[in-house]
Amino acid sequence: MHNEDTIAALSTPYGTGGIGVIRISGEKAFSTADKIFKASKAMEEIQSHTVTYGKIVDKESKDIIDEVLLLKMCKPNTFTREDVIELQCHGGIVVINRVLDLIFKNGVRPAEPGEFTKRAFLNGRIDLSQAEAIIDLINSKTVESSKAAVSHLEGRLSARLKIIRKTLVGLLAHIEVTVDYPEHDIEEITGEKVLENLKNIKGELHTLAGTFERGKILREGLNIVIAGKPNVGKSSLLNQLSGNTKAIVTDIPGTTRDIIEEYVNINGIPAKITDTAGIRNTQDVVEKIGVNKAYEAVGQADLTIVVLSAETGIDDEDIEILNLVKNKKALILINKTDLADKEQVNEIKAQLENHDIILKASVINARGIEELEATISELFVKGKISGNDEVLLTNSRHKYLVDRAIEDIQQALNSFSTGMPLDMVTIDIKSCADNIGQITGESIDEAVMHDIFSRFCIGK
Amino acid sequence: MHNEDTIAALSTPYGTGGIGVIRISGEKAFSTADKIFKASKAMEEIQSHTVTYGKIVDKESKDIIDEVLLLKMCKPNTFTREDVIELQCHGGIVVINRVLDLIFKNGVRPAEPGEFTKRAFLNGRIDLSQAEAIIDLINSKTVESSKAAVSHLEGRLSARLKIIRKTLVGLLAHIEVTVDYPEHDIEEITGEKVLENLKNIKGELHTLAGTFERGKILREGLNIVIAGKPNVGKSSLLNQLSGNTKAIVTDIPGTTRDIIEEYVNINGIPAKITDTAGIRNTQDVVEKIGVNKAYEAVGQADLTIVVLSAETGIDDEDIEILNLVKNKKALILINKTDLADKEQVNEIKAQLENHDIILKASVINARGIEELEATISELFVKGKISGNDEVLLTNSRHKYLVDRAIEDIQQALNSFSTGMPLDMVTIDIKSCADNIGQITGESIDEAVMHDIFSRFCIGK
Repeated sequence: MHNEDTIAALSTPYGTGGIGVIRISGEKAFSTADKIFKASKAMEEIQSHTVTYGKIVDKESKDIIDEVLLLKMCKPNTFTREDVIELQCHGGIVVINRVLDLIFKNGVRPAEPGEFTKRAFLNGRIDLSQAEAIIDLINSKTVESSKAAVSHLEGRLSARLKIIRKTLVGLLAHIEVTVDYPEHDIEEITGEKVLENLKNIKGELHTLAGTFERGKILREGLNIVIAGKPNVGKSSLLNQLSGNTKAIVTDIPGTTRDIIEEYVNINGIPAKITDTAGIRNTQDVVEKIGVNKAYEAVGQADLTIVVLSAETGIDDEDIEILNLVKNKKALILINKTDLADKEQVNEIKAQLENHDIILKASVINARGIEELEATISELFVKGKISGNDEVLLTNSRHKYLVDRAIEDIQQALNSFSTGMPLDMVTIDIKSCADNIGQITGESIDEAVMHDIFSRFCIGK
Repeated sequence: MHNEDTIAALSTPYGTGGIGVIRISGEKAFSTADKIFKASKAMEEIQSHTVTYGKIVDKESKDIIDEVLLLKMCKPNTFTREDVIELQCHGGIVVINRVLDLIFKNGVRPAEPGEFTKRAFLNGRIDLSQAEAIIDLINSKTVESSKAAVSHLEGRLSARLKIIRKTLVGLLAHIEVTVDYPEHDIEEITGEKVLENLKNIKGELHTLAGTFERGKILREGLNIVIAGKPNVGKSSLLNQLSGNTKAIVTDIPGTTRDIIEEYVNINGIPAKITDTAGIRNTQDVVEKIGVNKAYEAVGQADLTIVVLSAETGIDDEDIEILNLVKNKKALILINKTDLADKEQVNEIKAQLENHDIILKASVINARGIEELEATISELFVKGKISGNDEVLLTNSRHKYLVDRAIEDIQQALNSFSTGMPLDMVTIDIKSCADNIGQITGESIDEAVMHDIFSRFCIGK
């Protein structure tokens, strides 16, 4: 832990913009700011939570480096619960680096990724699942995922888990008393009470675990792969789904040589869509790499959209691709229906009798896209997806711990049913409370914490 | 002019980061913020220039969209001299767009590029050259260029120009009085006074115009092209100058097919260095495009570095390239001196007797790079370049106007020398004052202003 250090970093995205905000947190925040900031007021005269206009001056060279707004915020009412200074600089890379260099020359060290949030957690302003919600909120790709993240940030998941953990800790205390003063009837009453509580908690945890399928999609998104032989309209489909023209569309087979990825929003579900190279035998080395990547991509996909052409019908290449998605979640899209008559399309459908989901489209004319999107969202989320109405488990780490907690409860329940003495279940209840505490951060080891915060950006 | 509108935009760079700052400016800034911001204090209770923690809530859907810090700043002590609200949101694209959408639903319109700065100018907080300095500061590529921009932002250029303009306006008033009450001796005295002043102003403007060669380099940077036949070390040279490995280095001739550009810092001078494709006859279409681009690039360069190989000596291809830079600012770099003996190198030098600047290097061993950099900076900037010590003219628009102003003065002086009556020079003095006023913005037309601010980023 480096909590004695004062840290600083650019908290806004790195790049050229109107303004850039540099954050300084720690004991020396004010004294450091005092050394580099020149205004009509002295630093100690500036009230907490006020904004002061002034200049950043290198007192050695007398250089004026920038004109800034300075925010002074005294602990504990700050994000980190430490003294915080924020400098709103002009948003140029050189000017921001000059201000940062000056700060680092004055006894402040660069913040590690997520270190401000880590301090907010360590100093008790937020719990661990709220800290994780911050990064989820920043990374949200759709409105619904941002709603789920805000709900966690507001502490709605933590609140439920903390109640469960408190109940478990209460049960442990109860059992301890009972075991210390063993009177048969008390033990029996305690046993019944513990049993009832454990069953309730198991039910609650099950409900929570059941939300993960939807929650995971909101947080991590779907991984969708578009497969098909060259020139069936894969790139056009990607363009239609993403609503821009990033992927190159041409009539020459094999132009999509590299894997192209786009993040799109399918009825509120964030989805990464991968457009593969034309899957076929080829002597072209560059293209061959593309084909291999396509096979790999299909293997990892949550859903593969196989695109066929109604114009050309199904040939051996198509069949090879269709074999590839056997036993995988797949959707067949018969494209170019505008270039074929109804009979041709029906003939193709007849050949696809082993496949569940067959849709028709004329991608180039934007026909069939809405139905495709509706089918995809229906496949993964029954009903309307929403991150706001209920508490969803969205994070794989949390799901893993909830599953472990359920196992602990089951273990305790098993002990009950085999008539084990009451104090034998305390180890399971303790383990359960510990697993839940690892979500909220009430029990957490340094390595896990390091892992979580290292995924943050610098400056957060 | 839209000054009656209230405007909003994201003022930090667009992208994922720790925080993003949304700025709202105008009459409705506070009332709009009041509709979407929920905190322990009501908006009217919040003091000016203070920071308040709260939540952004969509009152219709009751959705909590984000937790933010709100800065309330009452006019006139704000950047725009209007009421300003700044919202420090979490730095995610979706969450920022949600907050912006909510603001736009509440009677605020999106700001145009540079519109906040434009209002700062129109409302008299800064003059036009200061507004231009803001964008120069943001775009600065080196410390020295940022110093020149800060100097302008501090108003050092404007201050000098305003004095000159004030003198001119004073002279006009003087002449008017003299012409209205024509008594011979007063006219003579006035004439002498005007003549003396105009000569002084001409001198000052000449000095200023003389700084432009250096100033332009600080603001716009040098355009340097690296030319040479394949495999002489052009990509390696670019890598050495830029200090990274972005350009691909291989031993296969012709691997630099596209023009590769890097921005580098040569002793404080920002330089765009273009690495050209190997200039030679080729049947490869892609490479041919590269060769043509190379010819074009050399034509537009401030300096071409022709790289030769000491190992292979000068051949016909080299001679073709050397012919290309005849009568252009060029520097010859004999590379790979580690692979040749002294005699070979001297022989090459002897063949280059028509060329002024010949340097030796072993780029791959980083030898000769410092000398190369020193030579380049010496070529363009005598002595040490500095953006801090003097007022530099950095902007082509300003240079154009200063040149026009000098012409006006010269015209006036010509009238004097041909014995024209005093009131004949007023038109030239007026024109001069007007040209200078177009730099500071004291006289400016809407079209020029529009052009200047449209080059700003949105949110500034």
